[in-house]
Amino acid sequence: MPSRKIPRATAKRLPVYYRYLNVLLNANKKRVSSTELSEAVQVDSATIRRDFSYFGELGKRGYGYDVESLLKFFRGILNQDKLTSVALVGVGSLGSALMNYNFHQSTNLRISAAFDPKPELANTIKSGIPVYPASELKKQIKEQQIDAVILTVPGDKSQAVTDELVAAGVHGILNFTPVRLSVPKNVQVQNIDLTNELQTLIYFIETNKVNE
Amino acid sequence: MPSRKIPRATAKRLPVYYRYLNVLLNANKKRVSSTELSEAVQVDSATIRRDFSYFGELGKRGYGYDVESLLKFFRGILNQDKLTSVALVGVGSLGSALMNYNFHQSTNLRISAAFDPKPELANTIKSGIPVYPASELKKQIKEQQIDAVILTVPGDKSQAVTDELVAAGVHGILNFTPVRLSVPKNVQVQNIDLTNELQTLIYFIETNKVNE
Repeated sequence: MPSRKIPRATAKRLPVYYRYLNVLLNANKKRVSSTELSEAVQVDSATIRRDFSYFGELGKRGYGYDVESLLKFFRGILNQDKLTSVALVGVGSLGSALMNYNFHQSTNLRISAAFDPKPELANTIKSGIPVYPASELKKQIKEQQIDAVILTVPGDKSQAVTDELVAAGVHGILNFTPVRLSVPKNVQVQNIDLTNELQTLIYFIETNKVNE
Repeated sequence: MPSRKIPRATAKRLPVYYRYLNVLLNANKKRVSSTELSEAVQVDSATIRRDFSYFGELGKRGYGYDVESLLKFFRGILNQDKLTSVALVGVGSLGSALMNYNFHQSTNLRISAAFDPKPELANTIKSGIPVYPASELKKQIKEQQIDAVILTVPGDKSQAVTDELVAAGVHGILNFTPVRLSVPKNVQVQNIDLTNELQTLIYFIETNKVNE
């Protein structure tokens, strides 16, 4: 594990590199040039080189990158050697869709528990995942040593649930609510605000038209 | 509309500012200081000032920002004066959840059409949205003058569907598939890769622990 902080944009590209390297390994490719890598993942090669430079010398000039050793390196970085269990809180329609989403297919991540206050959902199995009543949140998070949670509760419940999660020892939240959460410094929040994403896209479409 | 290109990170924060200004207006606040704004949206004030500087002088030193005129400005920038119709392609579990998602609540965005090849879905209404067979994609996109599409098809179908969308005149795609799409220069793609987001979060949790 590197102790040096790397930029968020770089961190977000690591899984992209990792996934493509897996494809190459399965195709029995031994090495890959930075140009090939760049074209396949659609990241320019200067950015790739800068990203990789955070982790020291990973390739050789004129040779490119050794697929197997690079893959092994990223597997370590991305913690793919061990299974990581995450929880999901809020089994509404988005929550249900994410429980049905195959995170596990290309990664070593797995939703191992879901939580919802609705009595008809408590103690059922949905998409193969046990759904616990909200009252068991703290106990299950601790017992299953869950560090990361996918948050899909209604916006007006999100801060209260977050406070509970933090008290239960959670260190990271993938926040699908439109609310900006307050958390202590040692807790990471990654926001996926779907309305924002759509609005930003529309904005870029419009400005792009103006610039044409 | 500004003709100057603004950074993607800034564009992503515009809807956040817009939403908070709406809250202030509803609370009858006349003006807001950059410190208040900064605390509410959890963006540091230097970043806010830099973001705003792309659009010229929006506030006065020592006075802060006038809520109504700032809101009016962002409403124009974000195209909130007119209703924008978007389409969704791929009515699986994630697609269904997004059709159920209330984009319209805080914005002037609306999913006006969905498309899916499954015969049992064709010509039904789901969450108030008409679902058309895939064969009608081009016709409906053109007729409804749809510019932006939410893409929730299986990964192995995504490039073929994208090519069809581009041919139909679509200028922006919110891509929920893990595939990096090839599009012409005049088409914007915004990727929301859920596996990546989760992996990146785990990565940050782990490195944060090491740094502690």
